[in-house]
Amino acid sequence: MKAAIIGASGFTGEELAKILLGHREVEITYLSAKLEKELPFSELFPSFKGRLELVCKSLDLEEACGLAEVIFLALPHKISQEVVPQFLAKNKIVIDLSADYRFKDSKVYEKYYKIAHTDSDNLQKAVYGLPEFYAQEIKKTKLVANPGCYPTVSALSLAPLLKENIIQDVIIDAKSGITGAGRRAALEYHYAHLNGNLFCYKPFEHQHLPEINQTLSDIAKRAVSVRFTPHVIPVERGIIITVYSQTTKDISIDEINSIYENYYKEAPFVRFFKQKLPQLKDVVGTNFCDIGIMQSGKNIVIVGTIDNLVKGASGQAVQNMNLIMGWDETLGLL
Amino acid sequence: MKAAIIGASGFTGEELAKILLGHREVEITYLSAKLEKELPFSELFPSFKGRLELVCKSLDLEEACGLAEVIFLALPHKISQEVVPQFLAKNKIVIDLSADYRFKDSKVYEKYYKIAHTDSDNLQKAVYGLPEFYAQEIKKTKLVANPGCYPTVSALSLAPLLKENIIQDVIIDAKSGITGAGRRAALEYHYAHLNGNLFCYKPFEHQHLPEINQTLSDIAKRAVSVRFTPHVIPVERGIIITVYSQTTKDISIDEINSIYENYYKEAPFVRFFKQKLPQLKDVVGTNFCDIGIMQSGKNIVIVGTIDNLVKGASGQAVQNMNLIMGWDETLGLL
Amino acid sequence: MKAAIIGASGFTGEELAKILLGHREVEITYLSAKLEKELPFSELFPSFKGRLELVCKSLDLEEACGLAEVIFLALPHKISQEVVPQFLAKNKIVIDLSADYRFKDSKVYEKYYKIAHTDSDNLQKAVYGLPEFYAQEIKKTKLVANPGCYPTVSALSLAPLLKENIIQDVIIDAKSGITGAGRRAALEYHYAHLNGNLFCYKPFEHQHLPEINQTLSDIAKRAVSVRFTPHVIPVERGIIITVYSQTTKDISIDEINSIYENYYKEAPFVRFFKQKLPQLKDVVGTNFCDIGIMQSGKNIVIVGTIDNLVKGASGQAVQNMNLIMGWDETLGLL
Amino acid sequence: MKAAIIGASGFTGEELAKILLGHREVEITYLSAKLEKELPFSELFPSFKGRLELVCKSLDLEEACGLAEVIFLALPHKISQEVVPQFLAKNKIVIDLSADYRFKDSKVYEKYYKIAHTDSDNLQKAVYGLPEFYAQEIKKTKLVANPGCYPTVSALSLAPLLKENIIQDVIIDAKSGITGAGRRAALEYHYAHLNGNLFCYKPFEHQHLPEINQTLSDIAKRAVSVRFTPHVIPVERGIIITVYSQTTKDISIDEINSIYENYYKEAPFVRFFKQKLPQLKDVVGTNFCDIGIMQSGKNIVIVGTIDNLVKGASGQAVQNMNLIMGWDETLGLL
Repeated sequence: MKAAIIGASGFTGEELAKILLGHREVEITYLSAKLEKELPFSELFPSFKGRLELVCKSLDLEEACGLAEVIFLALPHKISQEVVPQFLAKNKIVIDLSADYRFKDSKVYEKYYKIAHTDSDNLQKAVYGLPEFYAQEIKKTKLVANPGCYPTVSALSLAPLLKENIIQDVIIDAKSGITGAGRRAALEYHYAHLNGNLFCYKPFEHQHLPEINQTLSDIAKRAVSVRFTPHVIPVERGIIITVYSQTTKDISIDEINSIYENYYKEAPFVRFFKQKLPQLKDVVGTNFCDIGIMQSGKNIVIVGTIDNLVKGASGQAVQNMNLIMGWDETLGLL
Repeated sequence: MKAAIIGASGFTGEELAKILLGHREVEITYLSAKLEKELPFSELFPSFKGRLELVCKSLDLEEACGLAEVIFLALPHKISQEVVPQFLAKNKIVIDLSADYRFKDSKVYEKYYKIAHTDSDNLQKAVYGLPEFYAQEIKKTKLVANPGCYPTVSALSLAPLLKENIIQDVIIDAKSGITGAGRRAALEYHYAHLNGNLFCYKPFEHQHLPEINQTLSDIAKRAVSVRFTPHVIPVERGIIITVYSQTTKDISIDEINSIYENYYKEAPFVRFFKQKLPQLKDVVGTNFCDIGIMQSGKNIVIVGTIDNLVKGASGQAVQNMNLIMGWDETLGLL
Repeated sequence: MKAAIIGASGFTGEELAKILLGHREVEITYLSAKLEKELPFSELFPSFKGRLELVCKSLDLEEACGLAEVIFLALPHKISQEVVPQFLAKNKIVIDLSADYRFKDSKVYEKYYKIAHTDSDNLQKAVYGLPEFYAQEIKKTKLVANPGCYPTVSALSLAPLLKENIIQDVIIDAKSGITGAGRRAALEYHYAHLNGNLFCYKPFEHQHLPEINQTLSDIAKRAVSVRFTPHVIPVERGIIITVYSQTTKDISIDEINSIYENYYKEAPFVRFFKQKLPQLKDVVGTNFCDIGIMQSGKNIVIVGTIDNLVKGASGQAVQNMNLIMGWDETLGLL
Repeated sequence: MKAAIIGASGFTGEELAKILLGHREVEITYLSAKLEKELPFSELFPSFKGRLELVCKSLDLEEACGLAEVIFLALPHKISQEVVPQFLAKNKIVIDLSADYRFKDSKVYEKYYKIAHTDSDNLQKAVYGLPEFYAQEIKKTKLVANPGCYPTVSALSLAPLLKENIIQDVIIDAKSGITGAGRRAALEYHYAHLNGNLFCYKPFEHQHLPEINQTLSDIAKRAVSVRFTPHVIPVERGIIITVYSQTTKDISIDEINSIYENYYKEAPFVRFFKQKLPQLKDVVGTNFCDIGIMQSGKNIVIVGTIDNLVKGASGQAVQNMNLIMGWDETLGLL
C-alpha cells in the first residue's frame, strides 16, 4: 500500500518514515514538509541516506492523493483540520497525529489549544486510536485521531482499575524525554540547558490533561478527573509515569495483577510486570507499554512507560493502520 | 581549624574535600579511606592534583585525633557508630554524614537499616543538622547527625505549610541523580544502563521515609506521615521533588508565598520562587535549596531542589560546622 | 535455521538476540551465559520481555549442538578457542566475535592478548569476516573470525586509498562509546565517571592496532603500519574515527571520491558522503559504515563511523551468516 | 575594584559573573547584553538568584565607564572593536574575550572572520593574554586580547617542545563541549541532536588554526604550521586535544617530561602528568590546563585538557586581570 507522510520534518515524521521503511506491506510514496526549499529526505535526516531518497516537498494535496492511499498527518495542531476534510473527500485513510480530532467536545479543544475548531463534522466521525480499547471502532473508520503521548501511557496504566472502580484520587507524575516537545530550535532545548537538568512544566494546565480525563471517563463510563503534572527529563525519548492512588476497598496485589493480565491478555504491546516496576529504557525504540504496580495498604503506585515517539505517536499510528487494513496488528512493529 | 575527613573515597568525601579547600578557616590535615593501599588523595581523584596531595590512609583514630579538631564522618551507615564514641571521648567536634545518629528511636533505625544500634547514649545527644530549623541546638552540640539528602529537601519544602497546618495528604515524588547511590562499581550504575533511563525504586520502604516523617513531625509538633517515592534519573547530581498536596482551608497563593518568605527570610541557602518553579540544574554545585509553588483550587504542587552532595550532604555538613564554630553560616559555601 | 548465542549476557550477545529476533530465516534456540543461576533471557534483559523468554543456561556443548546449526560465540577472548574445535567437529557453522581467530600469526595474538593460542589448526582455516573485502572466502567457510570494531571502521575507511597506494603516514584518532569496553561493573564505567568525560587509553599498544595493520596490509598487498589511538567518549554506542594522512601524489578530491564510490558500489552497508563528513549518530542502531573525506593540498582528513555493536560486532556477524547461507546479505539488517 | 561585563548573556558572560562573584577584590557594578528587554541577571540565569540581582541593560558606554574600572568584553567577534577604542579613551582596563585583537596581522583576521578590522592602532598595542608565556607584557597593558579556547590548550600543550625544537609534523585532534559554540538556539545544538552524537567540523579552515600557528610561531621564534581538526562532543564543557607528532631526534620520555616540568614550574594553572594522560573531566569547572605525554620511538602523543569556559575564556580573563592589578595570579580562581 502506498503511504504519504505530511509534515515529515519533525520527530514523529522521521520516526514514521523509519517504521514504514521496515513495514513489508507499505511503500512511502509521498513526503511533504514546510522547508525553505525542497530537499531529499536523506539530506534532511542523513541517517536515511541510501534508504529514503524521496524528495520532501511543499504539500500539494492533489499530488499526495494521486500517489498515496493512506495519509499520515504529522502536522502541528490546527494545521491538520485544514487538510483532513480534503483527504477524506478523496476517500483516503487518514491517521492524524495531531490533537485536532481527539476531543469530542470542540469547546475543550478550543480552551486548551486556543484556536477555533473548523471541522466539527469530521470531529464526530473520528475514532480515538487507542487500539487496546477501541480496536473494533478503529477497524471501521477512515479517520483516526491518534492519541497524545501522555494520554496513551496514562490510559493504559489506569484504565483497568478505574473501569473496575477500584481506585480513586489519582495523581500522575509524568516524566518525558525532550522529543515530546517537538523539533524546534530553542534555548530551552539546547543541550547545555537540558543536560543534567529536569523541570516541571504546566502543572494543572497541560493540554493532555483534558485528553486523559476524557479517555479515562469514556472507558470507565463515569466522570474521571485526575491530577497530572508533566516534567521534562534529560533523555531523548521515552515517558515514564508514576501514578499515586488509593484503592476504594480491600484488594490484594494478586487480584490487582490479575485484573491487568486479564485486560491485556490479547494486547500485543502491553507488557505487565508482576512484583516489579518497569524501567524507562526497556521500551525505548519499541511500541510497548510496560506497566507494574506496587501496593502498601490502600496506597498503590503504578509505573507505566512508553516511547513517546513510537507507542506515543508513530508506532501507534502504524498499529492503527494495521487494524484498518485488516493486517496483523504488530506488522512492522516487532 | 584542622579538619579530618574519615571515609574520603566516596562522593561525599570528595565533595567535602573540595568545599573545605575553599574554606578560609579550615585546613584538611587528615584523610582516611578503606583502600587496597594508601594513596595520595590526588591519585584517587586526579582533579585534586596540586591542590590536595595528602595521603589517604587506613583509619587510625589516635592519629586522626592528634591531627584534627573537627571530624567529618563520610562513612557508610553502621560504621559511624563504631567510631563516634571514641572521637567524642577525645572531645572532638563530630559531623556524621551517615544515618547512624539521625533517629531518636533506635528501633526505627534498626528496622530500616537492618542492624542494631550500639551507641544509644550519643544518639540522644546528637543534634539533627538541619540549620534552617535547628540552628540554636546545632550551635551547642559536639555531635551533628547530618540529614539525608531526600529528607533535607523534603523538610525544607514542606515544613512551613505543615507547621502552619495548611496542608494534608502529602505525596512526594522524588528524583535523584546517581551520586545519591554512592560510589560503587555495579552494573546498574553503568553508564550504558543509566544513560537514557529513569526508574522508580523502593516505593513505600525507602530508609529516608521514616527520617522525613520524623523531621516533619518534630517541626509540625504532630504526627506527620507522607507518601514518598524515589526515582533515579540520568544526571550526576541533584534532587528535585514534586510534592502533591491539598490545602486544609481556603488560602491564596499569595498567602502561601508569604508564609515561605517569612519562614526563610533569615535562611541564606533557601531561595523561594514566586509564580515560578525552580529547575534542578540551578542548584547543582551550590548549597541552595530552591522552592516554588503552584496552586489550583485546593490542590497545590510544590517543587523543591537541592544538590544531593552539597545541601544534601557535604555542604550542609560545612554549614553545620560554621554554626558550631560561631562563624558566618555561609563561609566557604558561596 | 536454528541459532545459538554462546555468551549471551554481554552487550554483543544482547544485540545479536535483538537482530536475530527480526531475522525471518532464523530462530534462536539456545542461549548460554556465565551467570550465578539460570535465568530467562527476558529477566536478564527486561526489554526482551514477551519476545525472548528462552532460559539462558550454563554452556552445555552437546545441548547446544543438538539445538542449533549456527553458533554465535559472543565470548571473551581466550574462551572461544576452547570451544571452537568442538563446534567445528560437530560440523556447525561458527561465527566467533572474539579476537581468537583473527590473527594469522599466533605470535601476534599471544603478544597482544597475553595468552597462548591452543588451536592453530583452525586459526589457519578461519576467514576474516569483513564482507566488503572477503565475501567470496566467507561464503565457503565454516569458521568466521568476526572483525574487531575499530578494525572494521578503520579498514573500510582506509582500504581503497591504501590499496591504490595513494596515501601514506596514516594516523587514526578513534573515539568509541562505552559499550565497546564490554558489560562489566567497574568504577571507570560508572555513569558519574563517564558522563561529561572523555579520555584517551592505550596509545601505541591497543590490541586492535595489530589487527588493523594486518587487515590493511593484506588488502593493500604490502606492509602497512598506522598510528592508532583510541578514546572513550560519553555515548553508549558508536565509533567515529578521524584519519589524518597525506597523499603520495597530486590527486583531486573528485578522483578520491570516485575511488571510494567504485570500491563500495556493491557494498550495501557502506555509505560514502561527498563533500560532507558523516556524524556519529546517523549510524547508531544500524549496520552502516559511513565515510566522508576532506582535502587541503596533500593533507586529507577521512571520517568514518559505525555502530560498534552492529557493524562492529553483531550486525556484521549476521551479515557473515547471511553470506554463508547464500541469503541476501542484508537480511535482518535493514 | 569595580568591574563591568559587556555581553553578559552568553556562556562566557555567565561564567565571568560566577567567577567574579567569588573574587574578593572585585565587585560587579555593570552588566549589559543585547536582550529584548532589560532583565535582572538572576532572571536571565536563575542560578544567580539572590547572588546577582543587578539589571542587565543595553550597553551605555558612558554609564559603564562611570561605574567600572575594568571592562570585560564577552561580545561576539567584530562588535568588540567597535567599543574598545572608546573604553581605552576613558583609560579603562579592557579584557576582550573576542578574537578582535588577537591577530597581529589584520589580514589574517579579515580572511578568517570575513570582516574588516577597523582599529589597527589598538591592535598593535593589545597583548595576547596567555599568562604562561606573556605575563610580563600582560602586567603592563591596558588591553588584553584573551586567547581562544583551542589556542590556549594547544599552545600550552605544544610550546615547550616546539620552542626546544624537539618535535615536527604536528597534528591536533581537538574535541570540544558544545558551550564552545556559544549560547544560541539552533537545531544542531538541540539536545536530541547532540546527545549520543559526535562530529567533526571545519577541518583545515577553523578560525582558531591561524591563531594557534601565530602563537606557536611567536613562542618558538620560527614559523610553525600545524594541522588542526576540531570536533564537537556530547558534553557541556571542556576541551581535550590529542596531539600527534614526531621527535626530531632521539630523546627519552624522562627528558621530555623534564622540559615540561621546567617550563611550567612557576605556572599555577598548568598541571603536568608523568606516565599518565589527563582525563577531560578533571579540569571541568577549573582554570587548570592538564597535560600528559606518551612516547613510542619517535612518535609521541600529547593529551591536553582545559575547561573551554574557564581557562579557555573567563577564567583566563580573570587571571589576566589579576596580573594587571598586581594581585596573586590565582585570586578567585582556586
